[in-house]
Amino acid sequence: MIYKALNFAEKLRLFDDCWAPRVIAEMNDYQFKLVKLEGDFVWHDHADTDETFIVLDGELRIEFDDGHVDLRAGEMYVIPRGKRHRPRAAHEVRALLIEPRGVVNTGAAGGRLTAPNDAWI
Amino acid sequence: MIYKALNFAEKLRLFDDCWAPRVIAEMNDYQFKLVKLEGDFVWHDHADTDETFIVLDGELRIEFDDGHVDLRAGEMYVIPRGKRHRPRAAHEVRALLIEPRGVVNTGAAGGRLTAPNDAWI
Repeated sequence: MIYKALNFAEKLRLFDDCWAPRVIAEMNDYQFKLVKLEGDFVWHDHADTDETFIVLDGELRIEFDDGHVDLRAGEMYVIPRGKRHRPRAAHEVRALLIEPRGVVNTGAAGGRLTAPNDAWI
Repeated sequence: MIYKALNFAEKLRLFDDCWAPRVIAEMNDYQFKLVKLEGDFVWHDHADTDETFIVLDGELRIEFDDGHVDLRAGEMYVIPRGKRHRPRAAHEVRALLIEPRGVVNTGAAGGRLTAPNDAWI
């Protein structure tokens, strides 16, 4: 039997909207989500969990109250639980998010950029 | 304050040995490990957890009792808990592993390819 790998580029061709993560895989109770990011997201935090960003393409800044981190393709960052942050991208970024199943993209901040949860492609 | 992203290429320059994963980050109780793979690993499984491979460079085959999966750069695969597998690489592969803290690379199989756990770079 030939099992099929998950190909990020193939999956990214299946959607265009930004700030709307799509689940591509689960590992135990964690999910791998592809997302496209462009513009400014909302300030928020995740009180109960760390959150991982792996940048696949583009340049992403994640702002914190006390500074920022810049990420390019081939780089990752783990945002500690409870740390307020705001992702920003001048041009479209493609990233892989890893976090426990059930995490809402805007945390408790809500608002129009809150994406449906558990949306698979 | 400028926070620094984790750069896979920079970290991979810090070691040469194969089959010896190096931890670069933690997310809750999970670890991100970079590893270089070349040749045939041992058949093994992880009874208590899924395990994720993301290939950064090269071509990796993971054999199962009932088939195999081939992975290239930009592809990932989650091996289900308890599924016996053997990674093989004709030429050096660079990969990112994601699994809970404490997972031993050879599972219960042991042998000379068993790597030290929790080795950070």
